[in-house]
Amino acid sequence: MTALKTSFPLNAWYAAAYDVEVKHELLARTICKQKMVMFRQSDGTVAMLEDACWHRLLPLSMGRLEGDEVVCGYHGLVYNAQGRCTHMPSQETLNPSACVRSYPVVEKHRFVWVWPGDPAKADPALVPDMHWNDDPAWAGDGKMITVKCDYRLVVDNLMDLTHETFVHGSSIGQRAVAEAPFVATHGNRKATVTRWMENIDAPPFWAGQIKQARGYEGKVDRWQIIQFEAPCTVVIDVGVAQAGTGAVPPGGNQGDARLSERSHGVNGQVLNTITPATDNTCHYFWAFARNYSLGEQRLTHQLREGVASIFREDEHVLEAQQIAMEEHPEHQFYNLNIDAGSMWARKLIDKLVAAEQPAAKIIPIRQAA
Amino acid sequence: MTALKTSFPLNAWYAAAYDVEVKHELLARTICKQKMVMFRQSDGTVAMLEDACWHRLLPLSMGRLEGDEVVCGYHGLVYNAQGRCTHMPSQETLNPSACVRSYPVVEKHRFVWVWPGDPAKADPALVPDMHWNDDPAWAGDGKMITVKCDYRLVVDNLMDLTHETFVHGSSIGQRAVAEAPFVATHGNRKATVTRWMENIDAPPFWAGQIKQARGYEGKVDRWQIIQFEAPCTVVIDVGVAQAGTGAVPPGGNQGDARLSERSHGVNGQVLNTITPATDNTCHYFWAFARNYSLGEQRLTHQLREGVASIFREDEHVLEAQQIAMEEHPEHQFYNLNIDAGSMWARKLIDKLVAAEQPAAKIIPIRQAA
Amino acid sequence: MTALKTSFPLNAWYAAAYDVEVKHELLARTICKQKMVMFRQSDGTVAMLEDACWHRLLPLSMGRLEGDEVVCGYHGLVYNAQGRCTHMPSQETLNPSACVRSYPVVEKHRFVWVWPGDPAKADPALVPDMHWNDDPAWAGDGKMITVKCDYRLVVDNLMDLTHETFVHGSSIGQRAVAEAPFVATHGNRKATVTRWMENIDAPPFWAGQIKQARGYEGKVDRWQIIQFEAPCTVVIDVGVAQAGTGAVPPGGNQGDARLSERSHGVNGQVLNTITPATDNTCHYFWAFARNYSLGEQRLTHQLREGVASIFREDEHVLEAQQIAMEEHPEHQFYNLNIDAGSMWARKLIDKLVAAEQPAAKIIPIRQAA
Repeated sequence: MTALKTSFPLNAWYAAAYDVEVKHELLARTICKQKMVMFRQSDGTVAMLEDACWHRLLPLSMGRLEGDEVVCGYHGLVYNAQGRCTHMPSQETLNPSACVRSYPVVEKHRFVWVWPGDPAKADPALVPDMHWNDDPAWAGDGKMITVKCDYRLVVDNLMDLTHETFVHGSSIGQRAVAEAPFVATHGNRKATVTRWMENIDAPPFWAGQIKQARGYEGKVDRWQIIQFEAPCTVVIDVGVAQAGTGAVPPGGNQGDARLSERSHGVNGQVLNTITPATDNTCHYFWAFARNYSLGEQRLTHQLREGVASIFREDEHVLEAQQIAMEEHPEHQFYNLNIDAGSMWARKLIDKLVAAEQPAAKIIPIRQAA
Repeated sequence: MTALKTSFPLNAWYAAAYDVEVKHELLARTICKQKMVMFRQSDGTVAMLEDACWHRLLPLSMGRLEGDEVVCGYHGLVYNAQGRCTHMPSQETLNPSACVRSYPVVEKHRFVWVWPGDPAKADPALVPDMHWNDDPAWAGDGKMITVKCDYRLVVDNLMDLTHETFVHGSSIGQRAVAEAPFVATHGNRKATVTRWMENIDAPPFWAGQIKQARGYEGKVDRWQIIQFEAPCTVVIDVGVAQAGTGAVPPGGNQGDARLSERSHGVNGQVLNTITPATDNTCHYFWAFARNYSLGEQRLTHQLREGVASIFREDEHVLEAQQIAMEEHPEHQFYNLNIDAGSMWARKLIDKLVAAEQPAAKIIPIRQAA
Repeated sequence: MTALKTSFPLNAWYAAAYDVEVKHELLARTICKQKMVMFRQSDGTVAMLEDACWHRLLPLSMGRLEGDEVVCGYHGLVYNAQGRCTHMPSQETLNPSACVRSYPVVEKHRFVWVWPGDPAKADPALVPDMHWNDDPAWAGDGKMITVKCDYRLVVDNLMDLTHETFVHGSSIGQRAVAEAPFVATHGNRKATVTRWMENIDAPPFWAGQIKQARGYEGKVDRWQIIQFEAPCTVVIDVGVAQAGTGAVPPGGNQGDARLSERSHGVNGQVLNTITPATDNTCHYFWAFARNYSLGEQRLTHQLREGVASIFREDEHVLEAQQIAMEEHPEHQFYNLNIDAGSMWARKLIDKLVAAEQPAAKIIPIRQAA
């Protein structure tokens, strides 16, 4: 873990809002240190503009919509969804420079994604895979919370679930998590941490789920497969199955066949994507999707609130950590074995950030003759 | 509009308080980044001192009055109205340097004015004309609010009433204001913006006034004559009259005769003077005086509260603008036609500020021989 | 009085807590800009550790105790009372550098004292004498308040009781204090201010005490003997006795015999020790012990709350003074006669601070040949 510095790439898709948050109304949000205002247009698509009037900088979000155009709340300049000024008060001629920035937007898997960097690079195919969030084979829901910490601290938190034992002891934590071995691997843009716990007592949360959904009480196999995608998305495949029913990794071979053989268990996907707001705040979007008891809306509600409680415990820890890090700007951090996953995540983030830095000038060095 | 910088002249009269605020009690207020304490003396005049004891800097406003002297609330040093220390605890001899600054004060037109600069230049004749505030031919009242913005943003706001259409749509705003042509002129210390709107529907506020005072319903001529006096006073002559009764400018000639021919209308003077407190806060003193229904105290009360509501809408916009400007310190502002008045106001302010800067050393430039 | 700068020695005992505050629980407190966490061990002694986990800096005070060891609330690292890490999650080998700082602690006279500097110099004999706080010949109690000011402003306040007249006029203040002569003396680490007021009316507080305890009403002799011990402890011997009964200094000779001849009076010890928290906040520990009506618990309660009210008046003044000093960083302070005691206190503090500075390099100066 390196010391704190501003470090997020701009050329990436970031979740800006949950789909239901964006209506035919002005909604302000700060993404990657940029103030943005978004609204849903008549055709259903979302427009995202810089939230500062070209004229006197008043946030456009303090104005109002007129059709699919934004009217500034101070002097009435009007902007279309592309950010171009289409009307100025008391004058016929429009200053050709009069526009605000407009951002590429994609709506996918229940999130509105924005690309704060170079629009030419905004390829929709790069949106992270969160398909469980609107896949009919899965049911679930989520929330967004704004956390007062560097978004990377949330990533660290998710990449090492050892903390469940100490932070979430009353729900999903258990000694087994802190003690079980895990495997960390990585690719070019992804890093994975896999932990299997065989033939253990289920923690309170999972014991309740498997009893309710499968009528099973007894020892379970438990898994956590954490997959990070740079810069800030973490999908965690979690669950428990009746001990010895096949959810256990067969001799280390983690093939697709095995992963799909979970019919005696309960399986969830914890979907997380964490958008930097400023250097020390972030918007943390999450959802919990399950592949059992799909029709039970009561369970969806209960799980959403339950996970929200768990994340509030994390929030408390993360905000304290942020304060402590700001108080120790020179602190040299040491890594433990459990930090393997977050170390890889950090490296992949750093690589993206470095790729956006201007190339350093290379000054040829000649030895004195 | 230039980027934000500290910029108010010190050699000017600034409203420090409404007359009724100043009693035989210590009242603290920050004016032009200087903490001051004021009180009304036995003879009715107001004394204004630096609000920091010479000895240990405790605000004198935390002490108490003894006659017309201030006793510090920590160690009991006593200061007279000229700021000279007249008593020290446990010692007979007074340190000759023991004094706090005292400021020139004038009370006029219901305001207590202070001169934060060179006392030798404090000419009472320079107090801005706000006579409507205690002229028996006019009735009215006002308030003071402390706004979290550079005082010049309030001046900008008042110099362009286009914003009424967008900020005050439910009371005095109407499309006609944003669309009507206006004329901006300026002198050495004053700048004027004049806008006439002929034969229009009155906005809600004025429709009510003219109906109540004159029993008139129908088309009106409406005027706004904004007069700025540097550095921070803006008097706005506003009103409506029965359409075509003479309140209209006769061929561009804005002589006294025409201006006084308003017997079929209702006329108000919006009196504004905005005192810088710090670089990003100001004390905004205003009053609304009218020349109709003079004896109706209920109307005075109603108008004061009505105008207060309108100014709260401005306050919301101005504070947001201040924050946005601080977030964009390098922003290059463009001006629209509607900014003509505030541009002149800014130039007149800048001239006063520049006049107080130490003269730059002139280094003779010699061309190489 | 010099301008504000960080200035407290690290090699000194500072009160960290009242004895009763420290239980078998984690208690966080900032001392001399260092965040510490303390807890009482099974054997009754107090352990004091740096309040930041070696791994990710989470405050250890957010974790929990397991026996006499602290478990971090994030990843479960365990530290013993010496600050050494004894357990890490998911690994057998402990990183040898894994420890947090542990501080020398002494518990004496009802306070838990910590030494933030070099542990090798932490001599328990240097703990300031506050024995009245647990001496059976005295009864009393006290409190701790965190004040938003440089701890030296509290010292200044206590070294000159002239302020009682102006700040505490309704209880212990009276003109006599501001007018009475006083004597200031000093030694190597201590400074003393002695003030005798003979044959005066007692102020409200003391009039009540002597009437209740001794049944006496009438003129009194009053004394205040303020003793400062660097860097931040002030013990004030205060009281009144029946006028002329021997509490008066016999011809300037302040021998022990006289001081103990107070049988016709009431005597209190105001115990104060002020621990710097940051540059502009401090923890002010105080107690009031008396040598009369020892068994009356009601009086102990009443006096503790009464003194607390008096100190709240000081708190208000001190915080305002701190703000004013920060606003005037360049202010040159002048001293009055009454500042003699605090001037000596400041000199003794400065001497301790200077002794901890690295010796300046001495660069030999050679005159040009």
